[in-house]
Amino acid sequence: MVAGAAAVSRRSGPQRAARREETVLNGAEGIVRTLLAGGVDHCFTNPGTSEMYFVQALDSIPEMRCILCLQENVATGAADGYGRMADRPAATLLHLGPGLANGWSNLHNAARAFSPIVNLIGEHATYHRTFDAPLHSDIAGLAERVSRWVRSSDSVESVCRDAAEAIAAARAAPGGVATQIVPLDVSWSEGATPVDAASPLSAPAPSADAVERAAEAIRSGGPTLLLLTGAALRAGPLETAARIAASHPCVEIMAQTSNGRIERGAGRAPVERIPYPVAPALARLERFRNAILVGAKDPVAFFAYPGRPSRLLPAEAQVHRLAEIGDDLPAALSALADALAAQAPAVLAPAEPPPAAHGPLTAETLASLLAEGLPADAVVVEESVSVGRGFFAATETAAPHDWLQVTGGAIGNGPPMAVGAAMACPGRRVICLEGDGSALYTHQALWTMAREGLDVTTVVLNNGGYAILHGEFRALAGEAAGPRASRIMDVREPAIDWPSLAAGFGVPATRAADADAFRAAFARANATPGPHLIEAVVSGG
Amino acid sequence: MVAGAAAVSRRSGPQRAARREETVLNGAEGIVRTLLAGGVDHCFTNPGTSEMYFVQALDSIPEMRCILCLQENVATGAADGYGRMADRPAATLLHLGPGLANGWSNLHNAARAFSPIVNLIGEHATYHRTFDAPLHSDIAGLAERVSRWVRSSDSVESVCRDAAEAIAAARAAPGGVATQIVPLDVSWSEGATPVDAASPLSAPAPSADAVERAAEAIRSGGPTLLLLTGAALRAGPLETAARIAASHPCVEIMAQTSNGRIERGAGRAPVERIPYPVAPALARLERFRNAILVGAKDPVAFFAYPGRPSRLLPAEAQVHRLAEIGDDLPAALSALADALAAQAPAVLAPAEPPPAAHGPLTAETLASLLAEGLPADAVVVEESVSVGRGFFAATETAAPHDWLQVTGGAIGNGPPMAVGAAMACPGRRVICLEGDGSALYTHQALWTMAREGLDVTTVVLNNGGYAILHGEFRALAGEAAGPRASRIMDVREPAIDWPSLAAGFGVPATRAADADAFRAAFARANATPGPHLIEAVVSGG
Repeated sequence: MVAGAAAVSRRSGPQRAARREETVLNGAEGIVRTLLAGGVDHCFTNPGTSEMYFVQALDSIPEMRCILCLQENVATGAADGYGRMADRPAATLLHLGPGLANGWSNLHNAARAFSPIVNLIGEHATYHRTFDAPLHSDIAGLAERVSRWVRSSDSVESVCRDAAEAIAAARAAPGGVATQIVPLDVSWSEGATPVDAASPLSAPAPSADAVERAAEAIRSGGPTLLLLTGAALRAGPLETAARIAASHPCVEIMAQTSNGRIERGAGRAPVERIPYPVAPALARLERFRNAILVGAKDPVAFFAYPGRPSRLLPAEAQVHRLAEIGDDLPAALSALADALAAQAPAVLAPAEPPPAAHGPLTAETLASLLAEGLPADAVVVEESVSVGRGFFAATETAAPHDWLQVTGGAIGNGPPMAVGAAMACPGRRVICLEGDGSALYTHQALWTMAREGLDVTTVVLNNGGYAILHGEFRALAGEAAGPRASRIMDVREPAIDWPSLAAGFGVPATRAADADAFRAAFARANATPGPHLIEAVVSGG
Repeated sequence: MVAGAAAVSRRSGPQRAARREETVLNGAEGIVRTLLAGGVDHCFTNPGTSEMYFVQALDSIPEMRCILCLQENVATGAADGYGRMADRPAATLLHLGPGLANGWSNLHNAARAFSPIVNLIGEHATYHRTFDAPLHSDIAGLAERVSRWVRSSDSVESVCRDAAEAIAAARAAPGGVATQIVPLDVSWSEGATPVDAASPLSAPAPSADAVERAAEAIRSGGPTLLLLTGAALRAGPLETAARIAASHPCVEIMAQTSNGRIERGAGRAPVERIPYPVAPALARLERFRNAILVGAKDPVAFFAYPGRPSRLLPAEAQVHRLAEIGDDLPAALSALADALAAQAPAVLAPAEPPPAAHGPLTAETLASLLAEGLPADAVVVEESVSVGRGFFAATETAAPHDWLQVTGGAIGNGPPMAVGAAMACPGRRVICLEGDGSALYTHQALWTMAREGLDVTTVVLNNGGYAILHGEFRALAGEAAGPRASRIMDVREPAIDWPSLAAGFGVPATRAADADAFRAAFARANATPGPHLIEAVVSGG
């Protein structure tokens, strides 16, 4: 079968150059041109044979910035970080089903952060799919589970229209993953015509009814939780929410446990997050009789625990949905503030130096050191689920910054997200706070930081393993782990040598074992262009 | 909702000890006991909260050997290598959808190698699934695409029976991935009763008709390809096939391009593989007028290329299916030999020293060095798709060994597979031949090699990138890549420092840039217990 032969051109360099002037585009070139027309000019990739025409197009279309990642979960996580900070999609470019599978976890996280991503997957030629070649798999079936939009573009006539639809789908509020599957023969066939993506529709305003019901709940005076996520966690809407709380003392504002991005720090309205561990979360929410959800979900425990409920709000609390995640959340908060005539000034976080830290590096001293040393306008990527649990509260009065979290619980999101955030925000320092267990999932991102000269300070909080699991073990089993169980939760014997790993990828690194050493290393790293890794040797718990 | 409360026990240590004597088992303990009864005593894992009861069971059930891997694709790839060499399944233990997704690519490879694996996935508690907690996803939907058997065990009464069925499903010829999903509340609930797995049925013998048709094709005297894979590539059946070829000169025996395991080397019947690149593959197969498939598929190109066919056999060749992959392939070859009265002695590979290698490390000198230095009875794991393309032919007359390949085209299979092969074959040296691009996918496996003290020599063939893609680019585009396209295929700027990466994971390492240095390093590594990494700095192509 030589079905591909008709549409083929195998011209030499000069012939191709001539063709370019005539602007006869193949499918891959058409996609690149459509992406650029739609404002998508970054592509995070680890390509293979099925993506070679896209790679070829890079030589003649320099406007597309293509970033090589050493494993696909780095590429998808970088696209997540880029989307969160740029508020527009980057593209990925992945190699068939296995490439998608390798990057699936960070697409899962991205989907739960509502990050806009145009997720491109190269596929076998249309006529080759029936032969079950070794790399064949059901790409669409895999993609559906993390995508709001999936399409296989099976002709060069439709491939640009599909790419434009993918861009629009990725950008539609609140943002999401749009997956376009591009067969190899569609990439090489000629006759593609770039298409402009439609402008995204504005997010719908909340209904007047919903606003009035929420206002009524607050006026009733019972203890009321105003629970925020998504776009409600930018500085402006947070300040609106804080005005409501200042005007109505029955209201407390909180954010979900996990959120894509929070603008915070000194001079901004502070927001507390629902605690991750189930017992403190239940205790914290117990007093509320009303909950007003602003894009947020009815809060649930991360996991089930014996004898504990899955839902975190008290059963007697009334739940009001002010706005869904795809609605215009800032407008919803403004409408609510107006309905309540909330005029009291918002209470903003002061700029306040943390307690001076000395001695060994513990969860507490590290929290102080971070708050003290955080550069102004930093982007903090936080994936330090055990040691770092107190970092958020401690940095409330630090210099203004953005805070990005793992939203889907799939570890290995941090270093890739730092790559994408740094690409989206040149001139801002990215601080990547990583537990050692999580960092080991996708530390290949360090190489991309080195290659692209990204201003990322990665802090690996090395406590020798998955400390969170020791806590979960106790919470579930009611006892501490014995020696054989512990061995499956500890990354010791041998210990990871983080400066060696970083050097292997071309990133300079420092090991710090006490507060003074950390303080100096953190300041130096943040003041030096390019990436740096600090291994913080954590003492005690 | 506290649906889990009824079935719960949160007893302290002494209470649990007392319970163990009464042999009241929770679901997790029941699974472990069922696995052990079914001959599954190795478990490769990166666990999370949903797997904590399984981890807890390890403290009281020391017979289960549990091996921590730093990322799930290491765990699944290790289970693949174990299954190929032990001919019985290991278990995995993965954390919900993201854990499965992270390990999906090597399950894809394992499925295409027909490796037996009991793939255990911890899941949210049954009653917690409806709340769409951050880690929620459609686990079964993901698993179906790489599994021959999938079940979610939603009660403690069924969980052991399901585990026994999973073992049987994994072991049924030709072997495969059986996925059992275990909700957290099923793990913690009591009342599990271990179940013995059924013995696997013998693989069916081929039909007499199929044997006769194949024999008839050979008797006709036309050029005939006897194409083997799976169990037909062990030393015994290979020798039977070689007897047929010796008796009937019209017959040539070959193996598929990719196969799970081949027993080969001096004193065994040699077998050539269909070349990976499509042009040489077409040229090699052009002469055949008959093809007899012994578990093998009608051969197809790895990818489609403009103007090239997908099928590799000439259109006029008659294809005869002697046996399907699940049939008894050794028996099929014996029956065919009997039908043909094939009595001529098989031609076996002599023990023959390779040409002496000197000077820079190239594809050719490395092939000689490997053939020269291969320890007797080694297990070779080969994932070196560009530099290593000639290694197979060059080692045909080396000391006897097993040869394991990436079967599904998903890179990052090698180092994990080396972990599993070493666990399955204590006393045998494992040689892991890795392209640098592939090795970067799952080099976290090095840490498990160090922790478990595995006798693995990893040779990273460092040519500074994805050399195979430069070849694919030329094959597809008809021209060499320009500077921007090349940058996406080269892992330079910065170069990877492999000895640093290895040291970071606790594995001693050497860099070798010429033949003498490599020869000495290879000999020393293979003579020293425990793991070692050699970075071979490849010159030229």
